[in-house]
Amino acid sequence: MLGDEPPSAGRLEAFSDGVIAIILTIMVLELKTPASANYEALAHEWPIFISYIVSFFYIAVYWINHHHLFHRVKHVDLPILWANVALLFFLSLIPFFTEWVESTRLSPFPTAVYAAAMMVAGTAFFVLDRVIARQAISEEEWVLLRRAAQRKNLISIGIYAVAIPVAFYRAPLSLALIFLVALLYAVPSLWVERWADKLENEEAHRAPHEELHEPYTGPADR
Amino acid sequence: MLGDEPPSAGRLEAFSDGVIAIILTIMVLELKTPASANYEALAHEWPIFISYIVSFFYIAVYWINHHHLFHRVKHVDLPILWANVALLFFLSLIPFFTEWVESTRLSPFPTAVYAAAMMVAGTAFFVLDRVIARQAISEEEWVLLRRAAQRKNLISIGIYAVAIPVAFYRAPLSLALIFLVALLYAVPSLWVERWADKLENEEAHRAPHEELHEPYTGPADR
Amino acid sequence: MLGDEPPSAGRLEAFSDGVIAIILTIMVLELKTPASANYEALAHEWPIFISYIVSFFYIAVYWINHHHLFHRVKHVDLPILWANVALLFFLSLIPFFTEWVESTRLSPFPTAVYAAAMMVAGTAFFVLDRVIARQAISEEEWVLLRRAAQRKNLISIGIYAVAIPVAFYRAPLSLALIFLVALLYAVPSLWVERWADKLENEEAHRAPHEELHEPYTGPADR
Amino acid sequence: MLGDEPPSAGRLEAFSDGVIAIILTIMVLELKTPASANYEALAHEWPIFISYIVSFFYIAVYWINHHHLFHRVKHVDLPILWANVALLFFLSLIPFFTEWVESTRLSPFPTAVYAAAMMVAGTAFFVLDRVIARQAISEEEWVLLRRAAQRKNLISIGIYAVAIPVAFYRAPLSLALIFLVALLYAVPSLWVERWADKLENEEAHRAPHEELHEPYTGPADR
Repeated sequence: MLGDEPPSAGRLEAFSDGVIAIILTIMVLELKTPASANYEALAHEWPIFISYIVSFFYIAVYWINHHHLFHRVKHVDLPILWANVALLFFLSLIPFFTEWVESTRLSPFPTAVYAAAMMVAGTAFFVLDRVIARQAISEEEWVLLRRAAQRKNLISIGIYAVAIPVAFYRAPLSLALIFLVALLYAVPSLWVERWADKLENEEAHRAPHEELHEPYTGPADR
Repeated sequence: MLGDEPPSAGRLEAFSDGVIAIILTIMVLELKTPASANYEALAHEWPIFISYIVSFFYIAVYWINHHHLFHRVKHVDLPILWANVALLFFLSLIPFFTEWVESTRLSPFPTAVYAAAMMVAGTAFFVLDRVIARQAISEEEWVLLRRAAQRKNLISIGIYAVAIPVAFYRAPLSLALIFLVALLYAVPSLWVERWADKLENEEAHRAPHEELHEPYTGPADR
Repeated sequence: MLGDEPPSAGRLEAFSDGVIAIILTIMVLELKTPASANYEALAHEWPIFISYIVSFFYIAVYWINHHHLFHRVKHVDLPILWANVALLFFLSLIPFFTEWVESTRLSPFPTAVYAAAMMVAGTAFFVLDRVIARQAISEEEWVLLRRAAQRKNLISIGIYAVAIPVAFYRAPLSLALIFLVALLYAVPSLWVERWADKLENEEAHRAPHEELHEPYTGPADR
Repeated sequence: MLGDEPPSAGRLEAFSDGVIAIILTIMVLELKTPASANYEALAHEWPIFISYIVSFFYIAVYWINHHHLFHRVKHVDLPILWANVALLFFLSLIPFFTEWVESTRLSPFPTAVYAAAMMVAGTAFFVLDRVIARQAISEEEWVLLRRAAQRKNLISIGIYAVAIPVAFYRAPLSLALIFLVALLYAVPSLWVERWADKLENEEAHRAPHEELHEPYTGPADR
């Protein structure tokens, strides 16, 4: 009633782009420079570089996937607006947890919290995906595409969940798992994709009448 | 005479968007990471997360509402230009006062100053709204819409004013009041909206000849 | 020869806008929060707020005037490109000198350096203005407009030059002079404008054949 | 298969612009203000200003050249997308290594690492250039232009490589070499350009059937 229609999809995307670009870049400010001017001091900072690389690629991957998501947005409504703010909020915490991991030199608990933060951000992305999906539910093509994408999302969240307890066992392995997720998104031709396709095909044969396949039964309504 | 016509509305809005995106994101740089690598150290930082959440949503809400405001701007004149700079100035202080609240662990005086800073920013927004309203004063539809919006503005400023003394009594309650305002903007269907509508309707019956209703007496002049 | 044509005016302006928005906003990160949670600690930080206000409005004024300048750019050539980079470079140092003034509580020497930095940035702006002016030299209207603008520029640089020695006498007075320049740009109807107009008219009568008036002697060549 | 088509060239360029603008500007946050309020304290910080100037112009030059590169991009594919992320990643480390050089007052090892970081970023740029070149390989004009540009690239990487051992001998000389590269890009009419042209002409006469000249033998295929 207030005429407070949300911003356009283009403007929300540009704003999100700006926030993500800043998150990506300010992380370098958290890096403490080595105390002395020799190789040993630099080599001693290896945990910095590991977590910086993981966080940088993690956020770069979010930028790219955020873009894919917003391609489908027809108009921004309140749920999309606030699911997007929630995603930006959780992403904005990544530099904080990255710095904690760095300053504690990959200690188990901070690394577990770091993995948990990434799981929460992944879940926020999943929620945003679902909220946006409501607008495109009748478009056959998108349903299939997003179905695979959402499965990939869920697999990522699962890997993050596994990375949490693993941090207590071996922190670098936990970071490697998180990096693996970024890789799966960065290089779509890796195995998980094919595996997801295969699973999807099997499922399509097994359950032809499932809810998500409804669009198949008739022409798209727009 | 100098040909120094102000920038276009689109460019001023893009610049403001940039500034707000940066304010929103750099706050995370103010967060001090916990000193040790365990759960107690993280839990000890709860005041950080409370004030970070409040500030983040507060600024996100400003971004969205700033956009609504600029929808109505026909051309940027000097009062709009400088009322906007003033708003950005007060918003730019939010990370500073947020950090003070965090580093003093929600002490009464910093929390009161924080609430006062938010009241000043709210007042700057109200002034910007009024300055922009001059350009649209004859458009019947906008008058009604902005009337409700300005009442909402005033209610917000009132809640901030209440949050100032409350900080001396219970700082978290003060932050809760500020968060409440953000919620009222984030979820327009909350009670305050209906209540404002009801008030407005009553008032419309009581005072049909009031200044703001003038546009009703004839067709809009553009 | 290398095909390395400079970026378009629109893109250079957008990039400059981004850099200026970041400079404007990150200054708040330099502000040290008061050490204790009471009024005295906050009041003790008054030098922070004075220099922050001055720097904020100074940079906001540059943003607005940078926009005016780029309105006239027909195509970006190498001199414009690098005069612009030089301006951004000197503006980027403002947060550094602002912080020095703040941390030394308005000591004479840092304040003088701060005023000198603003004079250098003002000179870089003047150079950029002259470099851009070459492209518009034959347009009668712009010549008059920019003539007044450049006189204003020179007056500003003069005020900054005065502010340098004044800093050794009274630092707050030096900051007040710098703030005065920002005010003169922010409120074009202040006396200096009328005075500049009057001077210009007198001069136009005295020296009708001066170089800058050449466009008057014939129609604009485009 | 997933419909995860990469972002458009315009959007990728805008995002890269944002990241580069932030990198350029946040470096000032790394500058430590002098400890006392006098000339000696400021003069003592000369290493700060030297490395700041070098890094600022280095990144400004990257912004300009990144733009030239993206002019040729027809559509963003995965190799371009990730070569670009890699370039942004290495550029994002420049503020970190700049700060290390500053805080160690141009010590040999940090300066050598700084030069090495710039060589790696230069190599990432070269890779991005090659990856983009695949899309334009059949366009006669671009082949010639990019041939000279890539030779310039390789010369830059060579100068960076020389700057690494030089840092152990004389750190300021190492920075001077890096600054020289920025200058060569900033002022295209410097000798290296002509020298490269001359080399290219000679080579064109010597080796008329070389691979890169293939487009000459027939009309462009698009």
